[in-house]
Amino acid sequence: MKSVLVKDIYRETEKYIDKDIVVSGWIRTVRASKSFGFIELNDGTFFKNIQIVFEDNLDNFKEVSKFGISSAIIVEGKLVATPEAKQPFEVKASKIILEASCEKDYPLQKKRHSFEFLREIAHLRPRSNTFSAVFRVRSLAAYAIHKFFQDRGFVYVHTPIITGSDCEGAGEMFRVTTVDLNNIPRDKEGKIDFSKDFFGKETNLTVSGQLEAEIYALAFRNVYTFGPTFRAENSNTARHASEFWMIEPEIAFADLNDDMELAEDMVKYIIKYVMENAPEEIEFFNKFIDKGLVDRLNNVVNSEFGRVSYTEAIDILKNADKKFEYPVEWGCDLQTEHERYLTEEVFKKPVFVTDYPKDIKAFYMRINDDGKTVAAMDLLVPGVGELIGGSQREERLDVLEKRMEEMGLNKEDYWWYLELRKYGGVKHAGYGLGFERMIMYLTGMANIRDVIPFPRTPRNAEF
Amino acid sequence: MKSVLVKDIYRETEKYIDKDIVVSGWIRTVRASKSFGFIELNDGTFFKNIQIVFEDNLDNFKEVSKFGISSAIIVEGKLVATPEAKQPFEVKASKIILEASCEKDYPLQKKRHSFEFLREIAHLRPRSNTFSAVFRVRSLAAYAIHKFFQDRGFVYVHTPIITGSDCEGAGEMFRVTTVDLNNIPRDKEGKIDFSKDFFGKETNLTVSGQLEAEIYALAFRNVYTFGPTFRAENSNTARHASEFWMIEPEIAFADLNDDMELAEDMVKYIIKYVMENAPEEIEFFNKFIDKGLVDRLNNVVNSEFGRVSYTEAIDILKNADKKFEYPVEWGCDLQTEHERYLTEEVFKKPVFVTDYPKDIKAFYMRINDDGKTVAAMDLLVPGVGELIGGSQREERLDVLEKRMEEMGLNKEDYWWYLELRKYGGVKHAGYGLGFERMIMYLTGMANIRDVIPFPRTPRNAEF
Repeated sequence: MKSVLVKDIYRETEKYIDKDIVVSGWIRTVRASKSFGFIELNDGTFFKNIQIVFEDNLDNFKEVSKFGISSAIIVEGKLVATPEAKQPFEVKASKIILEASCEKDYPLQKKRHSFEFLREIAHLRPRSNTFSAVFRVRSLAAYAIHKFFQDRGFVYVHTPIITGSDCEGAGEMFRVTTVDLNNIPRDKEGKIDFSKDFFGKETNLTVSGQLEAEIYALAFRNVYTFGPTFRAENSNTARHASEFWMIEPEIAFADLNDDMELAEDMVKYIIKYVMENAPEEIEFFNKFIDKGLVDRLNNVVNSEFGRVSYTEAIDILKNADKKFEYPVEWGCDLQTEHERYLTEEVFKKPVFVTDYPKDIKAFYMRINDDGKTVAAMDLLVPGVGELIGGSQREERLDVLEKRMEEMGLNKEDYWWYLELRKYGGVKHAGYGLGFERMIMYLTGMANIRDVIPFPRTPRNAEF
Repeated sequence: MKSVLVKDIYRETEKYIDKDIVVSGWIRTVRASKSFGFIELNDGTFFKNIQIVFEDNLDNFKEVSKFGISSAIIVEGKLVATPEAKQPFEVKASKIILEASCEKDYPLQKKRHSFEFLREIAHLRPRSNTFSAVFRVRSLAAYAIHKFFQDRGFVYVHTPIITGSDCEGAGEMFRVTTVDLNNIPRDKEGKIDFSKDFFGKETNLTVSGQLEAEIYALAFRNVYTFGPTFRAENSNTARHASEFWMIEPEIAFADLNDDMELAEDMVKYIIKYVMENAPEEIEFFNKFIDKGLVDRLNNVVNSEFGRVSYTEAIDILKNADKKFEYPVEWGCDLQTEHERYLTEEVFKKPVFVTDYPKDIKAFYMRINDDGKTVAAMDLLVPGVGELIGGSQREERLDVLEKRMEEMGLNKEDYWWYLELRKYGGVKHAGYGLGFERMIMYLTGMANIRDVIPFPRTPRNAEF
């Protein structure tokens, strides 16, 4: 007989109740007396365990009583309702087979472990409650994003990971190479000869798929990327990883307002999808990780996001009855303390800050008529600060070229990006969502290392 | 007024017919006489164009008549049915606004271009019919894969791109580094000191997420990966790229039969989903790219996949009334000519070949009771050959360690992989599907460079 999945038993209980079934999974706990015992079994498909009751009519009663945590077993028995107990039902076992034992030195015994310790056993931590919840939510959120865009007819584009260009004209990148480091090819002048490298030139890991996404938006109108991106910055913080996943939609015949509408709809959709499809996990986070979580998420779903220009925001901050660590002046970049003050204390809901000074933003953002600001937007959310950054793109070739010259970018490197402006380069806009930041927001987890299966950070690439 | 999307006009025509609407998009052709003209407009949301009729009552009739291909326009007008014409409806324009012009040297003029030429303008080729169809199908197939697994409760895992381990113990990899190539850090003995590199050790781009997927299968039972993988092989063929996307499901409490069932269901699901959601594109491929395509896809969806052991397959090939270029002996790897003969001439449908000699397969595949073969499977399909490769994994620690020793693998590098076998390491299985190969199969496109937006191959990393 095939195993019934525990998720199905919880979701369609009436189908299985009073039936003989088979369940299989890993033991979370065993408690046994002389004549009977209980097993909490988790089969991986559901956050909650299912209770197995076994009695001394089993041939192997004594062995079962001593099965270790994380042993894999197959249980035959009847599913019975237990209306008076904590759990809604249990399996009365008629047979329990050990499929795979677990050795005594299993590091994930039944007690609280620090997240730091669990990072060192990233091959076992998804078996713990917290990480089981985190990584199921991560999977559901990823799917919610695909579903959101596909239901709206967006085309998913795989932009390249290995790249010869540097999207933002800045940012430290990882080199990708096959040259023999003990025998680096050099030209006659002694310079490194990258024409001998695999791709015939210098290549790096991408920091963003945006420029390539623009190509596809100018063909398919509405597109999105969802893939890994990289930063070789040697900074160890709770919010930065060297490898992380990013979502970058790009929409044509669209301006900054369309861009903000899309971002607002998307954020609400992801939250709703996860709350509906992982209620047990969200309840767990709200109870054990971040007590304000459910209220905060509901607040986001139910509010109309605020909008304020950067210039107005600076005025608000200057007149605030609060001392900030970083001083506020028009032209400065907003710090997390400013962002959180705006979203948490002034607006008390998510807020888009728009039209930033051009000098603190990237070359591709569209210059506003005032000549000083660009059509950019950042979405700030309570509890986190910046969740999304986006802009309308500069579609005017002459303006874009002038901007690139001012910023010292080499136009030849961007020949195809500039050509898009010559050939039907209609107005368009887009934004980037850091996927891990969204997961932190959805779960209340405070460290990015705890929302990526196998995090890559300076001096750490284990597993 | 907001633009109506052309896809919506085709799919829900009755909603818009005889209504005043706005459409916006890029011009594919303009034909104009002295008093009226036609524009074929593509708005990116749909494979087909919409016809715009304009007359000399427009203020800018003369300008419109001369708009170049790929100019972006906004059209106001009425949608009218045209039951006697080739196209089902057209827009009678009352106003046409030029949103973005297209310069005269636009390389993608209305004529046939070779795929080789189009690769050099990868920033424009998605605007052509063929690549518009290819990349919409690619997007839909990606979503079909997510939907297939998510509907079955599988957890999507992001396995790492930068890795310190080498999955298959073989294969050429790309180095990822931040060391200064002009000043490589060395230890006292003059050897390169990788402890000074970003991650404190040698790192590469992943060739497979399988080993990490096994970790997650032993926690969540049913999981899948879908992400980029890399090969630094200096080979220029129509079927190999240096960067490509791979799908790797991994299932616990499962054997090779379960694995094949899953693969068969998945392949059928993807094909059905794409045929249902991109009928216009599939019709185009069947007409212009690969005349047998629809028949072949229908045959796959409607047949029960065959199964044959490697040993039986060798017998069939030896007794075949056909001369092969590569000789056939038990123990040899099957060549494409053998694979295609089996699936196209013997079975005339997709077929799983199972239980290959262990010496030609990877270390992690489960050794069969005969001691000579492993529980591996390759799915061969007509027209392509191998589409999927998978296996049951060796869950017995002692057998796995012995195998790794025989193959000269360093067990310390795999400490966590081996620990999985100590701690509830139940039987499990999985497979890999090369995403681009699936797209080639779905479209009939013959070169992998033409199914990846920006292909990376030896000496090529443009865009």
